Amino acid sequence: MTGSSQNPARTRTTITRLADRGSTDRALLDALIDEVWMGHLGFIAAAGHPVVLPVLVGRDGEHVLMHGSTGAGWMRTIAGGAEVSLAVTAADGIVVARSAYESSMRYRSAVLFGRCTVLEGAEKIAALDRLTDTVIPGRTSELRRPTDKELAATTVLALPIQEWSLKISQNWPDDPAEDVAGHAWAGVIPMRTSYGAPLQAPDLRAGIEMPTSVRAFDESGRASS
Amino acid sequence: MTGSSQNPARTRTTITRLADRGSTDRALLDALIDEVWMGHLGFIAAAGHPVVLPVLVGRDGEHVLMHGSTGAGWMRTIAGGAEVSLAVTAADGIVVARSAYESSMRYRSAVLFGRCTVLEGAEKIAALDRLTDTVIPGRTSELRRPTDKELAATTVLALPIQEWSLKISQNWPDDPAEDVAGHAWAGVIPMRTSYGAPLQAPDLRAGIEMPTSVRAFDESGRASS
Repeated sequence: MTGSSQNPARTRTTITRLADRGSTDRALLDALIDEVWMGHLGFIAAAGHPVVLPVLVGRDGEHVLMHGSTGAGWMRTIAGGAEVSLAVTAADGIVVARSAYESSMRYRSAVLFGRCTVLEGAEKIAALDRLTDTVIPGRTSELRRPTDKELAATTVLALPIQEWSLKISQNWPDDPAEDVAGHAWAGVIPMRTSYGAPLQAPDLRAGIEMPTSVRAFDESGRASS
Repeated sequence: MTGSSQNPARTRTTITRLADRGSTDRALLDALIDEVWMGHLGFIAAAGHPVVLPVLVGRDGEHVLMHGSTGAGWMRTIAGGAEVSLAVTAADGIVVARSAYESSMRYRSAVLFGRCTVLEGAEKIAALDRLTDTVIPGRTSELRRPTDKELAATTVLALPIQEWSLKISQNWPDDPAEDVAGHAWAGVIPMRTSYGAPLQAPDLRAGIEMPTSVRAFDESGRASS
């Protein structure tokens, strides 16, 4: 699981437990962010307590991109330079061991730390396009461009991919010999995120066909069932 | 979306934006936690910065249950009474609007705040059983009981369900009239977590059949495909 070291050796990203599950492979980190595109962003509110919120995440080279309403209080806190922690997690399976204690998950778990910068101008627009196309590949090319009013209502954040840790576990149950010799079953139940057939909006005008970007979900949904 | 008010009116759980999406229905909160059983836990590390980690969550009446290794640093911080924020999120669909700006998600998003207590004795054992049976209903009855050594290696936390907010959006795209009159498609791509057919461990002894608890996943996986 351990690849080339691109992860600076800092205390808060050094994995101290289950170290065999830690990875310093940046390509695996990038692939996880690109695949999951949802994260949980933690910060310290102005009142001093921790807050965690779900966010859409995309990636542009060396930065994780996020966006939100200009009017949101949390967005102002983070745009102002507050330290953040961003978790991006994929649950890949339930590890069904021969005891509750050894039962666990197959997972990929990234945690990033740092401070965000606010993107403006062409960088901001490119980042919004990237976020849209992360969720629905190719969708941007099917849509009108954002208006100045829409851009003004949106704040776009970039978190440098500099300080991070990655834990990956894709293991089988690791039961002690006395449990393996017993009568309990062991294995893995695979998990994934799946998509259903797209539903058209009730107010869709007649004659507008499902676009290529959305049809791709329909086809992959059918192929995987 | 708004039900009976069981959510104390505190500043940090008062939803200030998109308030029509806020819910104070405790039954919806409970159902979300029970269904998703994964959360993201935020706290302030001893060094003063925020940290977010993925955690397994279960529920026992008025508490969210979590567990971890006695040896984990974060566990000691939280067991020591640090304030936490716990996010439990379900992504239910991609809202494909006629502009990038109006595109969004169908989701259910809970954020809880508080301090955890550490469970001991019979409460601790019952909480671990609850966590196991949350992920794999009925599994506890198929397994040997935890050993004293296993219990000593595990810390179990209970977060009171007292201070929380819940946002639910299950909407269609809400495009302005000029976009509805245009040529862009709009709709929703449903999302869910799905399970694949269970895989038996390479070291499973011959003659041990898949138990009822695991077969239920197999059957639901087939039924939904």
